[in-house]
Amino acid sequence: MTFSTRISVAFGDTDPTGLVYYPNLLHYCHIAMERFFAARCDVPYSDLIAKDRIGFPTVKIEAEFLTPLIYGDEAEIAVEVAEVGNSSLKLVYTIRRVRDEVVCARVEQIHVAISLDTKKSQSIPSYLRENLITTTL
Amino acid sequence: MTFSTRISVAFGDTDPTGLVYYPNLLHYCHIAMERFFAARCDVPYSDLIAKDRIGFPTVKIEAEFLTPLIYGDEAEIAVEVAEVGNSSLKLVYTIRRVRDEVVCARVEQIHVAISLDTKKSQSIPSYLRENLITTTL
Amino acid sequence: MTFSTRISVAFGDTDPTGLVYYPNLLHYCHIAMERFFAARCDVPYSDLIAKDRIGFPTVKIEAEFLTPLIYGDEAEIAVEVAEVGNSSLKLVYTIRRVRDEVVCARVEQIHVAISLDTKKSQSIPSYLRENLITTTL
Amino acid sequence: MTFSTRISVAFGDTDPTGLVYYPNLLHYCHIAMERFFAARCDVPYSDLIAKDRIGFPTVKIEAEFLTPLIYGDEAEIAVEVAEVGNSSLKLVYTIRRVRDEVVCARVEQIHVAISLDTKKSQSIPSYLRENLITTTL
Repeated sequence: MTFSTRISVAFGDTDPTGLVYYPNLLHYCHIAMERFFAARCDVPYSDLIAKDRIGFPTVKIEAEFLTPLIYGDEAEIAVEVAEVGNSSLKLVYTIRRVRDEVVCARVEQIHVAISLDTKKSQSIPSYLRENLITTTL
Repeated sequence: MTFSTRISVAFGDTDPTGLVYYPNLLHYCHIAMERFFAARCDVPYSDLIAKDRIGFPTVKIEAEFLTPLIYGDEAEIAVEVAEVGNSSLKLVYTIRRVRDEVVCARVEQIHVAISLDTKKSQSIPSYLRENLITTTL
Repeated sequence: MTFSTRISVAFGDTDPTGLVYYPNLLHYCHIAMERFFAARCDVPYSDLIAKDRIGFPTVKIEAEFLTPLIYGDEAEIAVEVAEVGNSSLKLVYTIRRVRDEVVCARVEQIHVAISLDTKKSQSIPSYLRENLITTTL
Repeated sequence: MTFSTRISVAFGDTDPTGLVYYPNLLHYCHIAMERFFAARCDVPYSDLIAKDRIGFPTVKIEAEFLTPLIYGDEAEIAVEVAEVGNSSLKLVYTIRRVRDEVVCARVEQIHVAISLDTKKSQSIPSYLRENLITTTL
């Protein structure tokens, strides 16, 4: 039931030591979150931004990088909902490399719903909340 | 017969005006080139780099950006082989948005085969050349 | 009289072959353009975007990459105004590495003034035009 | 005595909501770490990579993002050494915006020294250790 999605490591994602540059691991998490919203909440994240004027910026990260991803690897990123608050959302991302299922990274992030017009936090709309709760761990 | 591949515009690819930041259009071309090598030359670009120690850096670009891609768009990138020289390769990339097939960008790039060990240009190996010529315009 | 600015190559700007990933050379050009507007037109590009609601997206690129920049290099980027049209602006960027002044890249770009509200091209405002023309080649 | 360095937010660092895309905050931390090594350990990080064949990849992050940085902001990033182990190094990064000194982010990272040849962790060389300990909190 966990949502997961795949991303191939691109040439440009890696650094001169041949490993994925670690900010790009967080970029991968964001891409996975975007796909999670589309798949599980039935709304493209781009519509949340452009139409509903809601964003979910990250306010907290706890991450462990256990095994590096290298160029040529394919990553599988699982996204799990750990907590749904009034305006906050804790997502847990697990990044595995596909070839042997080794866990490369575990990343917990707290995202907060903000109105893009007022730039203030807001309640998570009920149409999202229902889908988020259904998928909670 | 033209090779083409799709890339969804990610949140992080766009700039504060909501358009794909143009260096990322060239990043998309590179990703398309990597997939082209895997699909048409039967060798992952990562193997070219890591095993064969050959790279194809870009030495020349002529690009026209006709219509912007925005967050939420899906791009289709066609890659065509325009010329195969001794060490150089001219590829033509056409980026369309999938929803209406409008051409967003045309990008010609000359890539040169270099040995990653000597950092000098080298002949394109015959196992690549054959596949490249087969797919020439 | 040519405007120029320096950028140190960051670890994250380079690719697994140790060279600056070429889309980042265009990112460097954009940073140089932003600094050019601040220095020569007396307006931060961020104010053009946020207050004046004008952007200068790139519509055309002709670039030659002659010598690679590597991690540890410092780049000096000269920006010259080649042409100022009604809504278009041709800038020529020359990227040298500082240690020996070797030219690494020459990049011509045509930028077009657009209204960020209507997303249509517009005349370059006179307060910019005057400064741009003064610095034309 | 704390090391600090400034980075101007570039147009391309921000996302369609106008805020710095959060993976780029970690990119800023890495740039600050590179400058910290050059300034406090008297060795460019690029020399560590290319000559000494030592890297310091991140294995753990704890980050709080308190106030967003936007396009046009200048960031000041302080780097403090919190712990120096045999092979590990805990650095604390504090990102403030320059205009009002508001703290935008606090980021703790554990970096581990690895040999780029064996890809295994190694002791931090004494010429680095001495300088790191001198600057410990």
